[in-house]
Amino acid sequence: MISKFFNPKSIALIGATSDPKKFGNAVTMNLLKNDNLDCEIFLVSHGSKVIRDIPTYKSILDIPKEIDIAFILVPAKYVEGVVEECIQKAVKGIIIITAGFGEIDQKGKALEKKIELKCKSAGIRVMGPNCVGIINADINLNASFIQMPPRGHISMISQSGSFGCASFYKMENQNLGISKFVNLGNKMDVSFDDILPFLMEDENTEIIAIYMEELLEGRKFLEIIKEVNKKKPIVILKGGKTKKGREAASSHTGSIATNYKLLKTAIKQSGVLLCENISEFIIALKSFSFIPIPKGSKLGILTNSGGTSVLFSDNAEKLGLDFATFSEELKNRISPYLYSLVKLINPLDMIAGARETQYYAITKSFLEDDDIDIVVGCCVIPPFLGMKSIEHYRGMIRAWDESHRKKPLIPLMLFSEGFDELINFTDENKTPIFYTPYEAAYAAKVLIQRYRYLNLL
Amino acid sequence: MISKFFNPKSIALIGATSDPKKFGNAVTMNLLKNDNLDCEIFLVSHGSKVIRDIPTYKSILDIPKEIDIAFILVPAKYVEGVVEECIQKAVKGIIIITAGFGEIDQKGKALEKKIELKCKSAGIRVMGPNCVGIINADINLNASFIQMPPRGHISMISQSGSFGCASFYKMENQNLGISKFVNLGNKMDVSFDDILPFLMEDENTEIIAIYMEELLEGRKFLEIIKEVNKKKPIVILKGGKTKKGREAASSHTGSIATNYKLLKTAIKQSGVLLCENISEFIIALKSFSFIPIPKGSKLGILTNSGGTSVLFSDNAEKLGLDFATFSEELKNRISPYLYSLVKLINPLDMIAGARETQYYAITKSFLEDDDIDIVVGCCVIPPFLGMKSIEHYRGMIRAWDESHRKKPLIPLMLFSEGFDELINFTDENKTPIFYTPYEAAYAAKVLIQRYRYLNLL
Repeated sequence: MISKFFNPKSIALIGATSDPKKFGNAVTMNLLKNDNLDCEIFLVSHGSKVIRDIPTYKSILDIPKEIDIAFILVPAKYVEGVVEECIQKAVKGIIIITAGFGEIDQKGKALEKKIELKCKSAGIRVMGPNCVGIINADINLNASFIQMPPRGHISMISQSGSFGCASFYKMENQNLGISKFVNLGNKMDVSFDDILPFLMEDENTEIIAIYMEELLEGRKFLEIIKEVNKKKPIVILKGGKTKKGREAASSHTGSIATNYKLLKTAIKQSGVLLCENISEFIIALKSFSFIPIPKGSKLGILTNSGGTSVLFSDNAEKLGLDFATFSEELKNRISPYLYSLVKLINPLDMIAGARETQYYAITKSFLEDDDIDIVVGCCVIPPFLGMKSIEHYRGMIRAWDESHRKKPLIPLMLFSEGFDELINFTDENKTPIFYTPYEAAYAAKVLIQRYRYLNLL
Repeated sequence: MISKFFNPKSIALIGATSDPKKFGNAVTMNLLKNDNLDCEIFLVSHGSKVIRDIPTYKSILDIPKEIDIAFILVPAKYVEGVVEECIQKAVKGIIIITAGFGEIDQKGKALEKKIELKCKSAGIRVMGPNCVGIINADINLNASFIQMPPRGHISMISQSGSFGCASFYKMENQNLGISKFVNLGNKMDVSFDDILPFLMEDENTEIIAIYMEELLEGRKFLEIIKEVNKKKPIVILKGGKTKKGREAASSHTGSIATNYKLLKTAIKQSGVLLCENISEFIIALKSFSFIPIPKGSKLGILTNSGGTSVLFSDNAEKLGLDFATFSEELKNRISPYLYSLVKLINPLDMIAGARETQYYAITKSFLEDDDIDIVVGCCVIPPFLGMKSIEHYRGMIRAWDESHRKKPLIPLMLFSEGFDELINFTDENKTPIFYTPYEAAYAAKVLIQRYRYLNLL
């Protein structure tokens, strides 16, 4: 059944409107944007007789066809009545976008419960209320009032709609892409547990991202993520970890307290990745999107900036990462490319004069070395000696491409966000890039954790 | 004397060259870029008779005028001889840019010591070796081989040159600016202790940033930063905090171990800000650059995104921040501007429909409220209802400007780095912007720490 939410053949939008100042309009317009959608759309409206040349119905009961999914956008006080009509119409699923229920007060909670029970006894699954809707980027379906994300292979379940919206902005920036997105809101019925098994089997989903504020059936959730994570990496961010955070969450999605410490321990034991903040969350998605899982845990580090490799090393040690020891064979192989001042130790500081040739040759040597499992290429773009802003990075990527990207390469281009030529290159070549020592070290940690986890299965 | 390094009236560049593949050329070109520099420049070169129409000298001894500062760029093996000539010439200060000394091996250390003693007995101060040079942006002096940073009021002492270079890239991005910059390198003679008293008195320096890998005379350093920090905030980042980091540092600037735990405790006790990573370092500089010091520690938070205020609250609690309780007076004042669904609690979730009007009115009310010391404006830019990407932020800034920016405003525009119109607005109006909940919470922490420190003086 969950599949129908993402792949409906017919949709009724109840509360559609031509008034651009209403959320109902935003959902309607997003949905109608894609002319080629393989899904019939019916609009139910009280105010507008015609919207974008489409005649509307007064009630879902007037629609002469079967409806897979009904989207409810009418004000909270009308929702119960509309749900009753949806039940009468025997829709397969309902998504209540309207807010103003359990997140507001006890009265709202009671109304939510009443609707929940009605749908349950009718055997109809419900998403929401208090959500932005659902997106299936594979088929260009945007049944939400937020923007269409870039297309890709991450599927996200978020309890917060605006979290999804902001994440899409960042993903756009970082060349990450979405397959499915769903905002659970108050989770009246459909919850994480229902969506996860669907995503596990979903062909286009390669990585699963979860933002949660509240977890009610912890045991069941833990069992499911344990299973799903074997097949596809799950990345979780929890909001409401602290007392202050939980208080904020309770007014947001009506969440009740979850013991974060217990949850943290349980998730970590299950082998699923739990991020501590939103930056880690994005870095983890980036790592899984662009970099293969290593076959060991030893890092080989090259740099043109001592400061950067010092700061990277500090972060690496804090995160428990291991550095490879260079073999005599490797030293002999790399020394012809390096200035005589350069010490043949890991991290390898090739000093500021290092150029594309060195970055290419050393990256290649590291990638081909059996003692090195992950290559970390640190760089501060030199503003001197006529060097190109892109050359060091390009050298690394050339070596990586020649090795068919089989071993992880983590390029740390310190604070290089402003170099358009470089950023365009990463766009075009779908290559990873990290901007701070912490980001690069965290990427390595995430990949190594996945390697160790898969190794134990 | 230190002032002479930043404000020389005559400079000799020893090792100047027209060969664009050499560092000597990079320094020469940077120095000659500013035609209006109020300083005479003399070039000493073996290879090039004329550089950019300027005739060169074979030796510093041939220059017919007094020299304030000699920059040495010749290969390491010639440095001792050149230093002897500088002593003979009675220059006031020497900056040795050349690398290949104590950071390489014992032989290099010995040579460094020898040169140090010669200069000491001649009473000449030396910076470096193994550094990129010195910058005084106030007078457009770039005597280094890295780029000129944007002009501003931060002065930076860095042990790593590439750290400075990368920081400048980030500063350019974040509207931060530099007054003085110096790269200490191996710190043969001139060290943090010498520069700090100068910066304390320097008119254009309002904030002092330090990147250090090694600290030899800890007690003296701590005494000095304690004094300086009373007048101007000092922001420190330490590289080589861990065993791995120290190993990397030892090959970088020849540093020896510093006990980070002890140093951390001592610095914290002195009231100086010690950042844990390079992102915190930039956020701290941004906070001091754009936001006034608060007169208390209570935060008032507004948001259009529940998820963002939940994540902000988590970070705030971790950093020990306090939230204000809304008075009845404040509630009465703000309620007319808000949807009826909105709960009048802190954080104030104005929900997704909030627009410029709400952001302006609520920010204004918070800024004028005596129970709120710092206003945190959270926002996810809404992609719906025809809202402008800039309007929420603009509303907050308008209220802030009307209050003459007297109270701290911390705008958290989640993941909005890609909105050009917004970024241009911050450029033009010199306003602060933060992109993640952690950044915003850390900014508040930094400002509150400074408030408490100044309050105890």
